This record gives sequence, C-alpha cells and structure tokens, in this order.
Amino acid sequence: MNPVKVGLLGLGTVGGGTLNVLTRNADEIARRAGRGIQITHAAAKAYDPSKLSGLDKVEISDDAFAVVDNPEIEIIIELIGGYSPARELVLKAIENGKHVVTANKALIAMHGNEIFAAAQKHGVMVAFEAAVAGGIPIIKAVREGLAANRIEWIAGIINGTGNFILTEMRDKGREFSDVLKEAQALGYAEADPTFDVEGIDAAHKLTILGSIAFGIPLQFEKTYTEGITKIEPQDVEYANDFGYRIKHLGVTRMTDKGIEMRVHPTMIPHRRLIANVDGVMNAVLVNGDAVGPTLYYGAGAGSEPTASAVTADVVDVVRALTTDSENRVPHLAFQPGELVDLPILPIEEVESAYYLRMQVEDKPGVVARIATILADSQISIEAIHQKEPAEGDSTVPLVMITQTVVEKRLNDALAAIEQLESVSGQIMRIRIERLDG
Amino acid sequence: MNPVKVGLLGLGTVGGGTLNVLTRNADEIARRAGRGIQITHAAAKAYDPSKLSGLDKVEISDDAFAVVDNPEIEIIIELIGGYSPARELVLKAIENGKHVVTANKALIAMHGNEIFAAAQKHGVMVAFEAAVAGGIPIIKAVREGLAANRIEWIAGIINGTGNFILTEMRDKGREFSDVLKEAQALGYAEADPTFDVEGIDAAHKLTILGSIAFGIPLQFEKTYTEGITKIEPQDVEYANDFGYRIKHLGVTRMTDKGIEMRVHPTMIPHRRLIANVDGVMNAVLVNGDAVGPTLYYGAGAGSEPTASAVTADVVDVVRALTTDSENRVPHLAFQPGELVDLPILPIEEVESAYYLRMQVEDKPGVVARIATILADSQISIEAIHQKEPAEGDSTVPLVMITQTVVEKRLNDALAAIEQLESVSGQIMRIRIERLDG
Repeated sequence: MNPVKVGLLGLGTVGGGTLNVLTRNADEIARRAGRGIQITHAAAKAYDPSKLSGLDKVEISDDAFAVVDNPEIEIIIELIGGYSPARELVLKAIENGKHVVTANKALIAMHGNEIFAAAQKHGVMVAFEAAVAGGIPIIKAVREGLAANRIEWIAGIINGTGNFILTEMRDKGREFSDVLKEAQALGYAEADPTFDVEGIDAAHKLTILGSIAFGIPLQFEKTYTEGITKIEPQDVEYANDFGYRIKHLGVTRMTDKGIEMRVHPTMIPHRRLIANVDGVMNAVLVNGDAVGPTLYYGAGAGSEPTASAVTADVVDVVRALTTDSENRVPHLAFQPGELVDLPILPIEEVESAYYLRMQVEDKPGVVARIATILADSQISIEAIHQKEPAEGDSTVPLVMITQTVVEKRLNDALAAIEQLESVSGQIMRIRIERLDG
Repeated sequence: MNPVKVGLLGLGTVGGGTLNVLTRNADEIARRAGRGIQITHAAAKAYDPSKLSGLDKVEISDDAFAVVDNPEIEIIIELIGGYSPARELVLKAIENGKHVVTANKALIAMHGNEIFAAAQKHGVMVAFEAAVAGGIPIIKAVREGLAANRIEWIAGIINGTGNFILTEMRDKGREFSDVLKEAQALGYAEADPTFDVEGIDAAHKLTILGSIAFGIPLQFEKTYTEGITKIEPQDVEYANDFGYRIKHLGVTRMTDKGIEMRVHPTMIPHRRLIANVDGVMNAVLVNGDAVGPTLYYGAGAGSEPTASAVTADVVDVVRALTTDSENRVPHLAFQPGELVDLPILPIEEVESAYYLRMQVEDKPGVVARIATILADSQISIEAIHQKEPAEGDSTVPLVMITQTVVEKRLNDALAAIEQLESVSGQIMRIRIERLDG
C-alpha cells in the first residue's frame, strides 16, 4: 500500500522534530500503523535545513493554504501555533475532507468547539494530544484509558517553564526575575514570557483537560488564571518549613455547585509524588472514582517530545484508515505480520552494576584478596564499605557497588570469592539500574 | 440504540468491581461510549450479592461455557484468571465471533500468541489493558501514545504486594517474612504468595510489556525471574546508605545483542521519581527515543482500579462498534450530543486552604487582632509562625496556614486585616491542595 501523504504546516521546533521523528523511525512507525507515513509537502516561511532530515522527499513552499488545498494530501499537521491563520487553515483542511493533527493548545482552547463541529460535519478526525503536556499521552489516558470513571479532579504541572523557575527558586533560593532571565537564555522561556509565567499557556491546557474530564464545552474565558510572578524566595522557604512545595498547578474539579477551573501557584504536601516533579518536566494527576489517583509524567515541551505526541496522533489516524475497524490497534502494538523474532538475552549476558554484600573475617588482607579477584576479572569497584560487626561476631559485613559488568563474569568472580576461607556463606547481590537514559 | 450485551465470567474481586462500576457509572460511560453497556449474563460458582449492585439485570449461572455460547452476547469479559478453563473459554468466545476483554496476565503471557491469531482470524478484538499494572492505562500508552518512538527500555514496579513488602521493610526496618504475614492478613497477598514474591506475576506482565514495546512474540519462558525473598533488612539499610532504594522491578531493554527481559530486586537512585513509588502502588517508566522518559503511576491491583481498566477496554470495543470508524473516540471524550453545560465556578466560590504571609509590627496584640478578624469570619488557622525580622526592620513576617474556606470570605477578611495599621503592604496568599482524594 502507498504511504499516507501528509502535509506539514510549520517547520519550527515542533515541526522540525516531527519531520525528523517520522524520518528516523519510519520503519518502526509503519510496522505499528500498518502503512507508511510520508510528509510530502510542508509550508514554512523560513527553516534551517541543517536541522532537518528527510527533506529530499518534501516539497516546501511558503503557502500554507496551497498545502491545505492539495488534493493528494490526506492528513494535515498544523504546527504554526497561535489563533490565526491556524484557525482558518484547520477549518479549510476539514472542509477539504482532510484529517487534522495539531499541537496548538491556544487554538483548541479558544476555537475547539467550532473546529470539532466542522470535523463532525465533514467526517474527519481532529487530534490534539500534543496540545496538553507535550509528550505525555494524557488526552488518550483521560479520554480512553479512564473512560470507566467519574473523574473527580485533575491537577497538573502543565507548564515546564514555570516549573523550571519554581524548582530553581527552591533549590537555590533564587529570585523569580533572576531565574526567568536564565530560562530565557536557555531557551525554555520566550522573549515575551507572559503566556508561561502568567499562566495563560497552562489555562489553555487546563481548559482542554476540564472538557474531556467532565464532558463540557471548551470555555477558556471562564478559567481563572494567576501567574507565579509574585512568589518571593521567602514564600518558597516558609512553604518548605510547613512541609509543602510550591507548584504552578492547573486544577479542575467537579463539585456539587459546579466545576472549578483554575490555574495558580499552589502549595502541595512535599511527600506527594507530583510535588517532586522538578525542572521543565510536566505531570498530571487524575483522580477517578474507580481507579483512584493516577499520575502521568514526562516532558511537557521540546522538539521531539512534542513530536512524539503529534506523530502518535498521526498513527491513530492512519490505523483508523488502514486496519479493519475491529482491529484498529494491533494486539501487540505492531501489525500481526510485522512481529520480529529478536533474541531474548539469557540473564548471563545482561550487563548491570551490582550491590554486593558478603560476610568476611575482620582481619588484615581480606579486603585486598577480594579486590584482587574482582580486579583480575576486570570488575571495577565504585564504592566499598566495611560495616560494624554484630556484637560477639568475628566477621563483618562488607558491602560494595561495582561498575557495569556482564553477569557471567560477575558469577565467576563471586564463585571464586565464595571459595575464600575468610568469606562465609553466600554473597548477596542486587542489580542496580540508574534509569537515566 | 439498544445497550451492548456483555457476558461476565467471574464475580470475584475484579468481576464484582466491574459490575459495580458499570452499574454506578452507567450514564457517564454511555455518554462516552455512544451506547449503553449492560452485563446481561454472568457466570460464577459462588458470589456475595451484598457486595454487588445491578444484579437485577443479570442472569447468573455457574456455566461459563453457556455464557460464551449465548448468541445474544457481543462481548465477553473474562475475569476467572489462571490458564484453564480461561484459555478454552476465551478461544470459544472468539470462535463464536465475540469480542473479549480480559485482565488475565497469565493467560496472555502464556497463550497470547494463540489467542491473538484466533482473534485475527475471526475478526474480533481481544483487549487486555487490565492485565498489566491494574488501573494504569499502560498498554494504551505504549501501544498508541508512544507509537512514534523506538522504545529503548521499560522499567516497572508491577507487583503491588512486593512493593508493599519492600516499602514496609524500608520504612520500619522489618523482616521480609514478618511483613509478608501482614500483607496476607490485609488481603494484599494470597495465601500462597509465590506468584507475587517470587516475581512470576511481574514476569507475566513484563512479558506483555516487552512484546508491545519491541514487536516480538510473547515469550514468557525466556523472562528471567528472581523474587524478593532473600532481601535482608540490612540490605535495605545499606542501599539507603549508598543513596539507593530497593524495588522489585521488571526491566525490558533493547540492546545491540538482543532484548533483555528480567524481573529482580533492583537498586535505584533514591531521587528518581519511581524510587518514591511506595506501598501497593505501581508505576511504569518508559524511555522512548523521541519522548524521553515518561512515567505512569496508579493502583496496580484491587477491585475497582482493575475494573477501571477492564471497563475502559469494553468502552474501546463499543466505540469501535458504534461510532463511524473515522470518529471512534469523540473529540471531547463524550459523544458530541452528550456534552452538558455545567456551570464553571467563579474563583470567589471555590473553597481552598491558604498559606498567608503578611508583614506585621513586632509588638504585643497584633497577632491577636489578626486572629480575631479571621475568627469573626469563621476562618480557622491550622498553623501560625512569626518569623525573625530582617536586620534593622521593626516589622516581621507572619505566616499562617488556614483550614478550608470559600475564597470570597477570605477576601473580605484579608481586606479587613490589610486595613490594620500594624499590617504593612499586601498580604501574600497561596492556595493549598492536599491532593489526597
């Protein structure tokens, strides 16, 4: 089957990331979607070819309306941002019978009701996972994954810039204005940071979350919005004294009187998982009556994280176009004919760092002998501690952390160490995962 | 349109929860799914009617095969567990052209390849969100939400019993066997805890995660499995000294040599979010090449959390049967005609606890006057601290935390306090959310 032809509006941070992800992971994505996905046309006023891959297959113009009107194209990805001409482009694409994927939170929050009605009328899909919390599939989680629940409330850290600023203020006792300048230098905050620090960006996202949680029309103008500009370092410190952290939260809650929709600085008990979401990361906590609290964490902005959500939406659309409706999502994520028989490694071939604990005689030379055996097996020690003996015990626990080693080599070395007279019993071992990428 | 008729196999913890959720949230679920969902038949050897709602509409028998053969039923929910007769029932349901939803991790990990091939052949769906991490929509996240990514690795706390035991060992320095007994008494662990503490349950789940991450057939027998029974309190303590926490992780990773699939106790740096997932809660950390790390947290077991995932799968099936394929999932989660115009509360009507900071003169009677104004407005103070004055300053910061109050009442009281001569400038206020249910 021919690849699905996609038109991309915008080749900036997210547009470029989307082209790059669709190019780099083309095979894997096609195995999942059941059909290739090709960006054939793109519209951009300016772009940097050195940051883009797969450009040879893309016809680029500066006329976004020409892309939207191109009859070959089945799906339009709108990544221009802002209200206009994004609204006109999206409505035109819908009118032309094209499916639309967008990351534009302002557009959906302000004009979503109109856009969805048009999509309904023309029988096309409009997908907007990337509009809320970047790469975190939170729209899918609420709209599908939690469909059994009466949602009680949602609370989210849904603006990375604001969270970066608050994290720096707490970690280093810095002033708001000082951190804001750094965030701008790092590219986390725009030259005009109003949308981020005054909560407008978060309010756009919260408006969308509130609608999908409670089944109400989008009403951005009723969302209460308060920024973080007035937070002083002493508030951060005093909050800490009370056992709280300050986060810029979007909160929407169903009450007997009506629905709360509000974005403002919020103190949260420091032991809550979401209170420990730091830096530019986002997290959304959803409380459902059946499932209880669930939390979704990840990068809320950035080129490829946002592209991840955009591309997932494109895959959703293609799956609906491609597979029979009763098998839209393949059981094992990849289409049945696309499973591969990669080897699964025996545990002896897995590499890991290790914690080791052994009971050794408390006398000179023992540690040296053990260290020599490890060194001979080229196993590096990162840390080693000899603990206090238990009362009346002539042996002591010796604990250490190794650097990464293949398991088989460790097994052989530990077998040799267990043979030593000065080592009693079996050596306890626990694998270490740093989970840092 | 008539409700979709569903047959339920099993009325135990999860089966009962599913019936209760589908009964309690029937309206909300129908507004999302586009059609009512009715359990019309159930099979159970024994059940406790006092714990079940909606039984009046359910015909109950002890013959599960009769339910599977009933021509009126479109969807079968299998919640019996175990390999047999679950396998035979599911295969028969598929052969009869019925869609299947199951929470049975053992069945999918062991017989999934056979079951999915049969489903493919008969054009029906088999959904199994509840088989991994209970109420957390992790299958959906990996299979759909992260479809753009080359998944690099997944690491998950996917057995709540094991995590409860390790959390208690750390928090209270207790012995494994001692905590296990408590977990059994609390109903977290089975009388035969082997599946939980030896990692077999986690290995079933990891097998499924590995397949959907990497597009490989299910291969439970190749998953390395090691339990937590050998962990000593001193290991927990020494891990802590090194800056780590011990968690029972399922890890699957793509390497150049092949795929790692392993369940074992693992030390993780204590600052990682997943290291702070405690008690019976589950969390899965997924690293994709585009999105980076994302984490999914929630209840991994229990009656209604698991029922939440089962029911979401049923909604997925019904949405595919009901809506035109191009609009399977409604834009705003609820079907377009089912949006409601609930009021959105003005911020003055929202209730919240508050942190307040004001600058006051450091002399007798000031705090009393402020407290009186708050008391007259029926605003209770939970904590109050007077801080040290800055050098050469005759005023001091007074900070307090109030109990919950409606915002309008607080506004009025603060306006009165700001009028006091002994209070200078504006009062800083930050709302407090405890996020505890």
